[in-house]
Amino acid sequence: MSVAGSDVRPGEVAIELPAAFDAGIYFIGRIRTPFKTRAECPKSPAASDAIGRVELDARYAAGLEDLGLYSHAFLLYWMDQARRDLLQQVPAHLGHARGTFALRSPVRPNPIALSAVELLGIEGTTLTVRKVDCIDGTPLVDIKPYFASIDSFPHARRP
Amino acid sequence: MSVAGSDVRPGEVAIELPAAFDAGIYFIGRIRTPFKTRAECPKSPAASDAIGRVELDARYAAGLEDLGLYSHAFLLYWMDQARRDLLQQVPAHLGHARGTFALRSPVRPNPIALSAVELLGIEGTTLTVRKVDCIDGTPLVDIKPYFASIDSFPHARRP
Repeated sequence: MSVAGSDVRPGEVAIELPAAFDAGIYFIGRIRTPFKTRAECPKSPAASDAIGRVELDARYAAGLEDLGLYSHAFLLYWMDQARRDLLQQVPAHLGHARGTFALRSPVRPNPIALSAVELLGIEGTTLTVRKVDCIDGTPLVDIKPYFASIDSFPHARRP
Repeated sequence: MSVAGSDVRPGEVAIELPAAFDAGIYFIGRIRTPFKTRAECPKSPAASDAIGRVELDARYAAGLEDLGLYSHAFLLYWMDQARRDLLQQVPAHLGHARGTFALRSPVRPNPIALSAVELLGIEGTTLTVRKVDCIDGTPLVDIKPYFASIDSFPHARRP
């Protein structure tokens, strides 16, 4: 374990990643948002009521059938600008190191972000959604319907 | 678009997938459950109070720092036995075709499953969790802390 790289803060921990990948991802679309740079992005979806669009590739159009029956969905997307080798990070709001798996930071071994969004509309292969926090053009990896029965834990504790 | 393959049911829609992947995934651990075959797995986490273990590879140990401060976490894992080319599926409980993005089926272009679990304990690189529904040995892709403020929608509607 070593600390290396120009944008690693004191207290952060970087590792050497495996030599090869174990599986492959298809980008299935793009997320369009008002945020053109990382600096413009809100720190979390809670800090944003921004309206965004999910543009699914035409190839996958048939997969949207019945999604409009749900009020909310999860978006999984690929944080393609994030480094993957930091296991402890020092978020500015926290001021000390915390494990990557205890953070929602885009920096993680597999930079897949997860956002629960409100579905405002679906037209063709374009979804209009509320609460998006990613940079414009972020690659989409998956869309899943939100089930309150298994996904909602209103009393979940956090520090 | 065509329907092909021996385990495609009437009404299901299969497509040709892209020729190449766009990004790569590292398997970062394994999920241990009581379910040795797909037939033994519960249909959803809601149908299971099974206790499981998440065994993170030693390489990523530092990433768990502070995860114990949270009561719940999301697990992302790779459904490595699932085909990836079906865009409409006929779940047995539904009896007609529904789009893959309106289902939580493991069958999807990127077979990443998402489960919110209760964290019962963390010892070394092993997490003990409640509510797991996957087959024993399923590859782990990510662990994220659960934030009720952005992840919990108790009134989300579903059909």
